[in-house]
Amino acid sequence: MARAFYRNLNRQKFFAGNLLALVFAATLMFGGSPGLARDVEQWGVFEAAFNGPTNGNPFVDVDFSATFQQGDKRVNVTGFYDGDGVYRVRFMPETTGAWAFRTHSDRPELDGKTGSFNAIPPSAGNHGPVRVRDVYHFAYADGAPYWEIGTTCYAWIHQPESLQEQTLKTLAASPFNKIRMCVFPKWMVYNRTEPEFYPFEGTPLTNWDFTKFNPVFFQHLEQRILDLQKLGIQADVILFHPYDEGHWGFDRMGATNDDRYLRYVIARLSAYRNVWWSLANEWDFVKTKTTNDWERFGEVIQTSDPYGHLCSIHQQKRIFDPSRPWITHVSLQDDNPEDAPKYLAQFKKPLIFDECRYEGNIPEGWGDITAEQLVGDFWKTFVEGAYCGHGETYLDSQDILWWSKGGVLHGESPARLAFFKSIIEAAPSAGRPLGGRNICWGVEGEYYLIYLWNRQHGIQPVTLPDNIKFKAEIIDTWNMTKTPLPGTFSGHTEIPLPTRPWLALRLTRCSEN
Amino acid sequence: MARAFYRNLNRQKFFAGNLLALVFAATLMFGGSPGLARDVEQWGVFEAAFNGPTNGNPFVDVDFSATFQQGDKRVNVTGFYDGDGVYRVRFMPETTGAWAFRTHSDRPELDGKTGSFNAIPPSAGNHGPVRVRDVYHFAYADGAPYWEIGTTCYAWIHQPESLQEQTLKTLAASPFNKIRMCVFPKWMVYNRTEPEFYPFEGTPLTNWDFTKFNPVFFQHLEQRILDLQKLGIQADVILFHPYDEGHWGFDRMGATNDDRYLRYVIARLSAYRNVWWSLANEWDFVKTKTTNDWERFGEVIQTSDPYGHLCSIHQQKRIFDPSRPWITHVSLQDDNPEDAPKYLAQFKKPLIFDECRYEGNIPEGWGDITAEQLVGDFWKTFVEGAYCGHGETYLDSQDILWWSKGGVLHGESPARLAFFKSIIEAAPSAGRPLGGRNICWGVEGEYYLIYLWNRQHGIQPVTLPDNIKFKAEIIDTWNMTKTPLPGTFSGHTEIPLPTRPWLALRLTRCSEN
Repeated sequence: MARAFYRNLNRQKFFAGNLLALVFAATLMFGGSPGLARDVEQWGVFEAAFNGPTNGNPFVDVDFSATFQQGDKRVNVTGFYDGDGVYRVRFMPETTGAWAFRTHSDRPELDGKTGSFNAIPPSAGNHGPVRVRDVYHFAYADGAPYWEIGTTCYAWIHQPESLQEQTLKTLAASPFNKIRMCVFPKWMVYNRTEPEFYPFEGTPLTNWDFTKFNPVFFQHLEQRILDLQKLGIQADVILFHPYDEGHWGFDRMGATNDDRYLRYVIARLSAYRNVWWSLANEWDFVKTKTTNDWERFGEVIQTSDPYGHLCSIHQQKRIFDPSRPWITHVSLQDDNPEDAPKYLAQFKKPLIFDECRYEGNIPEGWGDITAEQLVGDFWKTFVEGAYCGHGETYLDSQDILWWSKGGVLHGESPARLAFFKSIIEAAPSAGRPLGGRNICWGVEGEYYLIYLWNRQHGIQPVTLPDNIKFKAEIIDTWNMTKTPLPGTFSGHTEIPLPTRPWLALRLTRCSEN
Repeated sequence: MARAFYRNLNRQKFFAGNLLALVFAATLMFGGSPGLARDVEQWGVFEAAFNGPTNGNPFVDVDFSATFQQGDKRVNVTGFYDGDGVYRVRFMPETTGAWAFRTHSDRPELDGKTGSFNAIPPSAGNHGPVRVRDVYHFAYADGAPYWEIGTTCYAWIHQPESLQEQTLKTLAASPFNKIRMCVFPKWMVYNRTEPEFYPFEGTPLTNWDFTKFNPVFFQHLEQRILDLQKLGIQADVILFHPYDEGHWGFDRMGATNDDRYLRYVIARLSAYRNVWWSLANEWDFVKTKTTNDWERFGEVIQTSDPYGHLCSIHQQKRIFDPSRPWITHVSLQDDNPEDAPKYLAQFKKPLIFDECRYEGNIPEGWGDITAEQLVGDFWKTFVEGAYCGHGETYLDSQDILWWSKGGVLHGESPARLAFFKSIIEAAPSAGRPLGGRNICWGVEGEYYLIYLWNRQHGIQPVTLPDNIKFKAEIIDTWNMTKTPLPGTFSGHTEIPLPTRPWLALRLTRCSEN
């Protein structure tokens, strides 16, 4: 018996860590009639679900997709099997107005289903997906600037439920607007625990059927992505990583399984506006895949993701050729922010120092930097026109390190990154690195942000337009203070500064000019 | 009438900033008879002076040299005209015992003069010149280790007398055992003053006779080198530099004058054991000379300096081919101490980061680093097997910046460098960077110095020999404390550390093993 069911996943929590609730939700079916069309926000998720075959292996045996249409605009979207005889298709309308769809399948019961819905203007806080803006930067689809302030909790969704909830609570109070997180669980130092859910049917450790996905695993992943979306946080979804090494074998499934997994994830997740694709963490450290594999994955994403979500591939040492068309921005492991201008000139794509070492005190060299250095990296890369990623690795008796498991933050950088965020959010969105006489960031004649990093200047020479008055503030990026200097400044001037590092100088055109 | 005169320049101050005293000393002549032989220390200076022609241009017209002999050993030494009809020849005996000499000249009154002296064992504090030791390091000629802790006062000898005396007083209380200093005065930012003495006859600014040296200038230079020698400080004598740009024109004298100048300086200075040759500061920034010129200078030094003093050439950006035979060690401008291992492996010569930016607060990027960073550079390069140079550039109302003019030190690094010196002088002289399981400096089984730089480790894993007991101390290189840890350590162990940067861990084999 057919039942209609539309859900705006922006608004409804369908997975509460409770399998009973999930099964109930999944049995509410849309059977083939046009049904009633609910409103869905622009960049929200429209979802239709249908009953279909359960025999054989539906993950492999059944083709299922849909075409969404608005006037001449047609978008083909792949559907997916969600277990228990339920097939779903999700769609993110990128324009408002009426949309209609028709399904396609090699199974009659899933083919030719039609429906429609109305895409309404987005609610407050919904700015759409993040896109590349002006070659080197980012903006939301609605034009709002997106200044990336990322963090890293690679395996947070694979921790006990209470820890995940704590992570979300911590994130809610944090300045972060992006999180790097893995689909697959992680097995390495500080990460020797088994997750509650696994992505495939089978039994741990290595008795998996890679042809059969575990819908509960993915429903859980989706819920976490929605949780992040509610917090205004982009999910930089890491599709492959090397931190398995055969423990579960998710790093060595073979090309056919890899590709199927990738398509399945895309079918499930691409309608979520806060999804970014990170093809790999440390791609060059994944010993079981070749460059050709990564190229093929890039093509799968390009051809399967109808929305062109941001896509990158993070390296250990060897940067993957950033000119590849499926790479929208360069996700870098590099601890020298002074490398940014060189890379930007070379790559001509946005650049995120996603791993510039983590604030922490573990003996490993990738997790032992001070908060001062990490905060300095954010500021320095920003004024150079690039972006940065946070991570925290303080030793913990329970091995709960934020960088991988989430939980609570212990470090001194998050408060300073919040202060940093308050400064850049108050800056003109057209701000860019400026060459010329003032090596700084800003808009000529309007706004200059000079960042002194780990250096100390007793005076700062500044060349301002002769006929425009500016007010000046000394910004102590570490002590989080803004100290206005008396008077106004024009022309070439030397501004005295206290002799200490981590200062910035903000020059803002006076309104009374 | 011939008068005999020997001076051991180690013991006598012959220039007291008083020209009358100088002229008096210079008129005490050795006339040609063997005279009475005074004792001269090994690595001290034997000097003989003779009256000779004053007509024409003695600096150019007269050939004058001497051969010093001890058994089969023969050393040819070039003499020099010191003005007022006086010709001198200086010699540094590198072995004890009787030495005889005979002069050679195209002028009969200077030719065939003979004499002898006795080279006695060096006095306390005289270790001879510094040589390359074990490919990458330095030692004095007597085998005592030389751990380089340099500073920079480029133009200190060109400042008013009282300032020079202050500089010497400051140096006496400092940890520095090398100073980079220019022969020629300097004309650049913070350096717009005329010196008391000029190296050539003529009148400022540009009316010089480059064929006629000003002996008073060089006598003064020599006195300053002796003053440094008394303080146990090596004089890294910079022979050419670009900070003139035609103001005096000492950077554009032409090849013939350049070579004559070089030979004159070598004839005068090479007998001083604490002289090092720095062919140039920022050779690649000297626009008036070609690579061939520098090569020729290197050959002049190789053929004219009988003692093979240490010789380097400092770069702005382009490192001069370090494989050249006249380059004994690599003098580097580089602010990344992590470059050291790569350079050492490549160059196979000792490496000094002579300019890793200066502690200070000037707005120029080469003089605005914190004391923390500079001290960190010293420690970091040291444990990597290289050495470092200090400089200080704090803004001063009189433009007296230590880095160029000397005076007093204002910074926080010198006290920490004294502490650093106390640690490395107490370390085994056979200490070297160690690979293996402990990335540190030391002697396997005896002594380990682990330096954590700007990183912070809550624990430090250390792998010690199983059957040897070590005591451990946490060395706070910034707060200058040594905190012994209770008990002893053997085998693989994890040593807890406070979470802050600038720490070192010193593990010393217990005497009761």
